[in-house]
Amino acid sequence: KQYRIAVIPGDGIGKEVMPEGLRVLEAAAKKHGVALHFDHFDFSSYDYYAKHGQMMPDDWKEKIGKHDAIYFGAVGWPAKIPDHISLWGSLIKFRREFDQYVNLRPVRLMPGVPSPLAGRKPGDIDFWVVRENTEGEYSSVGGRMFPDTDREFVTQQTVMTRTGVDRILKFAFELAQSRPKKHLTSATKSNGISITMPYWDERVEAMAKKFPGVKWDKYHIDILTANFVLHPDWFDVVVGSNLFGDILSDLGPACTGTIGIAPSGNINPEGDFPSVFEPVHGSAPDIAGQGIANPIGAIWSGAMMFEHLGEKEAGRSIVDAIERTLAERTLRTKDLGGNADTTACGKAVADMVD
Amino acid sequence: KQYRIAVIPGDGIGKEVMPEGLRVLEAAAKKHGVALHFDHFDFSSYDYYAKHGQMMPDDWKEKIGKHDAIYFGAVGWPAKIPDHISLWGSLIKFRREFDQYVNLRPVRLMPGVPSPLAGRKPGDIDFWVVRENTEGEYSSVGGRMFPDTDREFVTQQTVMTRTGVDRILKFAFELAQSRPKKHLTSATKSNGISITMPYWDERVEAMAKKFPGVKWDKYHIDILTANFVLHPDWFDVVVGSNLFGDILSDLGPACTGTIGIAPSGNINPEGDFPSVFEPVHGSAPDIAGQGIANPIGAIWSGAMMFEHLGEKEAGRSIVDAIERTLAERTLRTKDLGGNADTTACGKAVADMVD
Ligand SMILES: CC(C)[C@H](C(=O)O)[C@@H](O)C(=O)O
Ligand SMILES: CC(C)[C@H](C(=O)O)[C@@H](O)C(=O)O
Repeated sequence: KQYRIAVIPGDGIGKEVMPEGLRVLEAAAKKHGVALHFDHFDFSSYDYYAKHGQMMPDDWKEKIGKHDAIYFGAVGWPAKIPDHISLWGSLIKFRREFDQYVNLRPVRLMPGVPSPLAGRKPGDIDFWVVRENTEGEYSSVGGRMFPDTDREFVTQQTVMTRTGVDRILKFAFELAQSRPKKHLTSATKSNGISITMPYWDERVEAMAKKFPGVKWDKYHIDILTANFVLHPDWFDVVVGSNLFGDILSDLGPACTGTIGIAPSGNINPEGDFPSVFEPVHGSAPDIAGQGIANPIGAIWSGAMMFEHLGEKEAGRSIVDAIERTLAERTLRTKDLGGNADTTACGKAVADMVD
Repeated sequence: KQYRIAVIPGDGIGKEVMPEGLRVLEAAAKKHGVALHFDHFDFSSYDYYAKHGQMMPDDWKEKIGKHDAIYFGAVGWPAKIPDHISLWGSLIKFRREFDQYVNLRPVRLMPGVPSPLAGRKPGDIDFWVVRENTEGEYSSVGGRMFPDTDREFVTQQTVMTRTGVDRILKFAFELAQSRPKKHLTSATKSNGISITMPYWDERVEAMAKKFPGVKWDKYHIDILTANFVLHPDWFDVVVGSNLFGDILSDLGPACTGTIGIAPSGNINPEGDFPSVFEPVHGSAPDIAGQGIANPIGAIWSGAMMFEHLGEKEAGRSIVDAIERTLAERTLRTKDLGGNADTTACGKAVADMVD
């Protein structure tokens, strides 16, 4: 079988890290006898927007909706396009319209990346954040009344549906069940957010009954963020709403040294639509064009894409190659104290793949 | 002038740390010629609830509404009373009905308290979190439809009023202006939470115009939590909505080693109602009754109360005494590697006050 991958570099350093991601994907595909076909798209970028007045063509769903996966760089350039156009016109559109209801990110302390947390070593921190990716706090329901007066007020609804909550919890419990520790932690705030969060807790309890082999606990988001810093070794799979998952999946990677190398998957588990794999970092206008961006986030996202496609060996070989590359100072990019540029780092990983 | 303070120990370790707080307040009052009068109240506790079926008497506002301040221990005992009764029946009632719209917490790395962040020393981390304390994500507006069916959904509104947002921003900008660095950071998430958070940003920009001497910036909450861990030295005054402030004011103290010593003020700046000063920690049922709780959070909250009452010298003397106490291992409680019990630690601080 040949996999058809839609490649969308997007903006800024997205364009610099994607070629390295593709280089490594090709190396792993070759070693593991996987056939990949890449289709490249220039939309979801500032350049496309400047030319066409919109982020994507009207028929974007036809163009990329039948691919086996989408490999994505980065989008957004706040100085040139407002976020509500660039992000809501691409990234968040994918999540919603391709029903990518799982946002999955590893939190893993890697060799060669010093943790900001005192005394933590590779192996000490190794868990997954599972984020609901379509509803919750990112609803579009709300509005403003009495504008420009003292009575002015603005509201926005958090929306949790039975379908939306149950399916993300099911995914998270299944993931926990597949891991040696079989431990799930739910992020809540039911002591303060008194309607939606008690509902979330209720559904967690109901779902837990279906997974008797999984130990589970819950923490309010305030103390949970504290525990990411104080006890990162407590976690195995952490599940949260759209907002809580967003926070935890930036804080987690920060605790492992940098969000610059973190990967992510926006996943439609049923496979009705393609899933998007992208580095956690953004387009980084401040360093774009210099060839110094760290390509590991994009490369690691490629490994997650292989995993998702069922090519576990190819995925695993990339993660191993990343670990071996990061362990060598000279192969790391500047942000990690090395002196490799984007290409040299990408080539190093590609060479290590076995 | 004599200050009248309402003292409410509440539940669990609240009852153990409050006597030490009072001991230190009295010592500092004596040294600085401040006259204090304490009125003790047993409500806002499980015991009171068990006897009366409610957390507070009907006339609680008359009982404590005329005091100059309220000195509070801790409330809540989830195994015995649901949070929505205990917390919403006292703590959150105070905040709403006494219009304590500022929740103020210091984030400060103290001598003797090892930071979980590698290489950080006292002096490196020293900022304030200013949290909106009455509206935002903690609204009571919302509900459930189609219960127990597949169509079930739950909504809850975030509510931001012009009055509510502007007054917390004004407080935060004023605080920033009073500090040497004159730097304010706003917590937002306007790229994802597309109605309320852009409004917050808009009001920050408007308020900033009135404080030309204050440098300000903003971060999305996800990367902001990451920066608390990676760059805690970047911050001076951080302002956030009810939820974002809640998260940051637990994460911040965690970055300085423990939430066990952190103090807080729930402040009505106009003085129309009394403000509440309380440690950040909760009632800690797991260690209650053992005499080992760390009283520093309560004591430090007492210092904040003096500050609020305008007795800056007395407040300062307590913070200094806390620093000198924490610097001695033998005077610290067990949670900080010492061997003092609650009373010994409290006495040590009281003795150090000058
Ligand atoms: C107990 C809880 C409702 C409360 C809050 O979320 O406000 C607490 O976390 C706090 O920060 O004082
Ligand atoms: C860019 C932004 C809208 C997005 C989000 O909040 O979902 C980003 O932070 C992420 O986590 O992918």
